[in-house]
Amino acid sequence: MNAPIQFHFDFISPYGYFASLRIEDLAARHGRAVDWRAMLLGVSVLKVMGLKPLMDTPLKGAYTGRDVLRHAREHGLLMKRQPTDPVMNPLPCARAFAWVKQHQPEHAAALAHAIYGAYWGEGQDLSTPESLRKLALPDGLSAEAVADAAAGDEAAALLRAMVEASIKAGVFGSPTVVVDGEPFWGVDKLDQVERWLSRGGW
Amino acid sequence: MNAPIQFHFDFISPYGYFASLRIEDLAARHGRAVDWRAMLLGVSVLKVMGLKPLMDTPLKGAYTGRDVLRHAREHGLLMKRQPTDPVMNPLPCARAFAWVKQHQPEHAAALAHAIYGAYWGEGQDLSTPESLRKLALPDGLSAEAVADAAAGDEAAALLRAMVEASIKAGVFGSPTVVVDGEPFWGVDKLDQVERWLSRGGW
Repeated sequence: MNAPIQFHFDFISPYGYFASLRIEDLAARHGRAVDWRAMLLGVSVLKVMGLKPLMDTPLKGAYTGRDVLRHAREHGLLMKRQPTDPVMNPLPCARAFAWVKQHQPEHAAALAHAIYGAYWGEGQDLSTPESLRKLALPDGLSAEAVADAAAGDEAAALLRAMVEASIKAGVFGSPTVVVDGEPFWGVDKLDQVERWLSRGGW
Repeated sequence: MNAPIQFHFDFISPYGYFASLRIEDLAARHGRAVDWRAMLLGVSVLKVMGLKPLMDTPLKGAYTGRDVLRHAREHGLLMKRQPTDPVMNPLPCARAFAWVKQHQPEHAAALAHAIYGAYWGEGQDLSTPESLRKLALPDGLSAEAVADAAAGDEAAALLRAMVEASIKAGVFGSPTVVVDGEPFWGVDKLDQVERWLSRGGW
């Protein structure tokens, strides 16, 4: 069995949401599992790279809003939240994910899907640990437990370690897929990832 | 006959080079001509957007170098210049292009291909008007005339107008393809451009 492919994502990233809907089928077609990894654009983009937020960047912000909606329309994806809406604080969701990945790793992907679907698909507010109590979750996951964890120190420490590891691996954007050490940034790269997996690189 | 699709590019952009090799076939498949337009990343990225040069951006610079070489290998493209090599002053080439587009529009695409091939493919230095005298050009174009034009005020004014128009249209990256007012940024977007042309948008 080949190593899982890494899927690095930030919940505030609509492109991460789009890719999250395809990554498992893509991996499965090549006999791979997916290792889901939360990262924080606020750390990579703002602190390490010294850039401003994407949507606040002249020209690029306007283009990105248009591109996101175009992508959603092409693929028929539910997206009640607009790319121009204010960005939530991603820490409660990302901490909850890091905690579930540690304690219920078999449910980590399901939690990521639930959060992405609620935030981007349904336009729900998930910016506080409290708001996670209303999150609809599949069997095996408790919204109460997830919300409690999101407010705790352990989840914060787990997320910090995950984010530090992603920076150390050179990951800066959402989504980034890493196949056997080879990084691919952007939902537009998924077709190339598929070719890379088919050919075993080039 | 539908309107030409616009192809905005900077000669210092390897992704612009890659896309330049595909854009005419792509357009032709949909009964479109290509309107070639030089832009300057030094204006859009550095001045208007307030960002640093791509290759000087932490994490993103290293990734980009790797991604460029991976793209060239996948498509079997000649590229003697490395993405990490110092960036040339693009003004002489871009001014020469603007001048030829004005005075010999039927040869504008050929000049763009010649410059891209010499700079990225062969790794030649094209950073001064003088260096353009050695450029191999197809019939109908004179390297002497092109080099003289690149050093003149008219070419500078023509390029300035072209760059101002691209900024005004919201173009910030190379390559950007604009189809009937709809912008697509990046060589990774060419497949989506093709689908947009096939379906007439969505």
